Amino acid sequence: MFRGVMESAKEFKKVVDTISTLLDEICFEVDEEGIKASAMDPSHVALVSLEIPRLAFEEYEADSHDIGIDLEAFKKVMNRAKAKDRLILELDEEKNKLNVIFENTGKRKFSLALLDISASSVKVPEIEYPNVIMIKGDAFKEALKDADLFSDYVILKADEDKFVIHAKGDLNENEAIFEKDSSAIISLEVKEEAKSAFNLDYLMDMVKGVSSGDIIKIYLGNDMPLKLEYSIAGVNLTFLLAPRIEG
Amino acid sequence: MFRGVMESAKEFKKVVDTISTLLDEICFEVDEEGIKASAMDPSHVALVSLEIPRLAFEEYEADSHDIGIDLEAFKKVMNRAKAKDRLILELDEEKNKLNVIFENTGKRKFSLALLDISASSVKVPEIEYPNVIMIKGDAFKEALKDADLFSDYVILKADEDKFVIHAKGDLNENEAIFEKDSSAIISLEVKEEAKSAFNLDYLMDMVKGVSSGDIIKIYLGNDMPLKLEYSIAGVNLTFLLAPRIEG
Amino acid sequence: MFRGVMESAKEFKKVVDTISTLLDEICFEVDEEGIKASAMDPSHVALVSLEIPRLAFEEYEADSHDIGIDLEAFKKVMNRAKAKDRLILELDEEKNKLNVIFENTGKRKFSLALLDISASSVKVPEIEYPNVIMIKGDAFKEALKDADLFSDYVILKADEDKFVIHAKGDLNENEAIFEKDSSAIISLEVKEEAKSAFNLDYLMDMVKGVSSGDIIKIYLGNDMPLKLEYSIAGVNLTFLLAPRIEG
Repeated sequence: MFRGVMESAKEFKKVVDTISTLLDEICFEVDEEGIKASAMDPSHVALVSLEIPRLAFEEYEADSHDIGIDLEAFKKVMNRAKAKDRLILELDEEKNKLNVIFENTGKRKFSLALLDISASSVKVPEIEYPNVIMIKGDAFKEALKDADLFSDYVILKADEDKFVIHAKGDLNENEAIFEKDSSAIISLEVKEEAKSAFNLDYLMDMVKGVSSGDIIKIYLGNDMPLKLEYSIAGVNLTFLLAPRIEG
Repeated sequence: MFRGVMESAKEFKKVVDTISTLLDEICFEVDEEGIKASAMDPSHVALVSLEIPRLAFEEYEADSHDIGIDLEAFKKVMNRAKAKDRLILELDEEKNKLNVIFENTGKRKFSLALLDISASSVKVPEIEYPNVIMIKGDAFKEALKDADLFSDYVILKADEDKFVIHAKGDLNENEAIFEKDSSAIISLEVKEEAKSAFNLDYLMDMVKGVSSGDIIKIYLGNDMPLKLEYSIAGVNLTFLLAPRIEG
Repeated sequence: MFRGVMESAKEFKKVVDTISTLLDEICFEVDEEGIKASAMDPSHVALVSLEIPRLAFEEYEADSHDIGIDLEAFKKVMNRAKAKDRLILELDEEKNKLNVIFENTGKRKFSLALLDISASSVKVPEIEYPNVIMIKGDAFKEALKDADLFSDYVILKADEDKFVIHAKGDLNENEAIFEKDSSAIISLEVKEEAKSAFNLDYLMDMVKGVSSGDIIKIYLGNDMPLKLEYSIAGVNLTFLLAPRIEG
């Protein structure tokens, strides 16, 4: 069996919004500790990983299950969540459905057909990164939107003093400079100057669910995949993005 | 002559918004008692009926007139209403126009050409219904939007204890359950268990003008048309929708 | 050199929004007094002229320069301005770029390629107008939107008592009447009754940046181009629009 109750359907909606822009389907690995899932995007450029510890739930009860879900349908359902809805996720083993229930005045139940997919074997690798930047989520997100005006990729640069997001179009260019003492920077730990280019669409998809107040942890190296980490509603999200080879 | 003044153009806009999604044109039957109109939608599935008693107007003066109006044009005009505009409707018999006037700072006058159509002979039939549900308008409206995710029709069910809105897609399904004691239910009078399917697009069009605070009266039977009633800005709206024969 | 600092990027955005709907590119004539620019729209129906006195800047320093800018790119950049951003415009002569910088937490810099265009020789002619109407910007703007429902041109009429905006479609028509004592009218100086028709799209483009609180000065005659004047964020905008010959 599996049944989990969350306080805010609206918050969990952000998680589903984010992963559904990168993935078409996902296999939630459920057990008594909580929920885990990871998958490569269809073009194998980005890795998405999420972890929902049982503590993120108000109530939680589960045996081991692999629950395959079509994320397009899940996103449509979660978009129907209202501000004060509680969220109940429950497995209906008989009907082979995941019930998504919004509780408020009245009870709105959606039953999603399970997909026959198995858990991904791709996990986030344990890599040591020379540089870690903690930045306010909205500042990072806005800088990416700025970059999107003139380019489809972005260069992230870090040195001891600052974190820079740079985009270069054919005619025009753009640069967001976050000095170490900027109020947007929570911490800037740089052991080795780094500069790498990344696909902008993927990066923007990865931070889709971030809202003001959220903090993003950026792991940046040279010739290394970018790693992003943040939490929404007690759900830990990790993303890995291969660097772009500049032409 | 005909001249009527309403306090809030913005409220009356909701009425026009609603009927204009179902009808292309309408004939307002005006007399000293107020205004009446009824019409079938072009595909003859839904009946729309409205009644504006003279008390819904701040000022009202009228002889008998049939005023034929193109609802697309009327809707465009009403969409220009601002929050504090008063509304004046007046017949210009000489120019054969209906003047729609918004009064606030300045006076904005729109003159709509009259259509040469006559009053519909189709009226809401006097049918006795076994079941009457009074429900908060926004709760019903949201349940219909939920249903719209996976299906193009909806099954309404009522028994002594609850009112249920059910939609079934090829893979996924959805159900909104309103228990008798739910705060969304004002009253639930059920003499005979009922279950009927209805076209979802029509139903959503019928409640388009409903906003939070409005209450909808639902008359439901077996193999009977659905009847909906509610009021906006003193205007009484009634809708009849033929049941869908399930395949 | 050229460097100017403005308090509110968001306000200046409205200026760029407006001129970029009418013009593709512009040449800013910068000198120690401030900035000037004027240009005909591509179809030579409308003249756009702007003047930014150095007093509109918090800080200002400039030699003589002609700065040619692609307005599509400038508009995209200005649309990225946030509520509390300060705006810095600065010429990078070495790289041949105009830097547009938003300062808030962090610093976001956009570098726009300069265009090789020269200052327009077309200036606003010194014409004496018989009638001058000062009207609240939003009232005028809304009246134009009303007119847009049924027609693609608008007739402006002024006499001693009122200013009227009239639009006539094939079937329906519209009229906004501003009496001399209307709260929307600041002043109405009429020496000669006037009535002229103008293209509605151009007129709406010209007042695009106007928001509630702004006041528009309308110069109206018979068989004369319409002249509009207003200020946003210390920037003086003037527009000239040729009258439409009614068919």
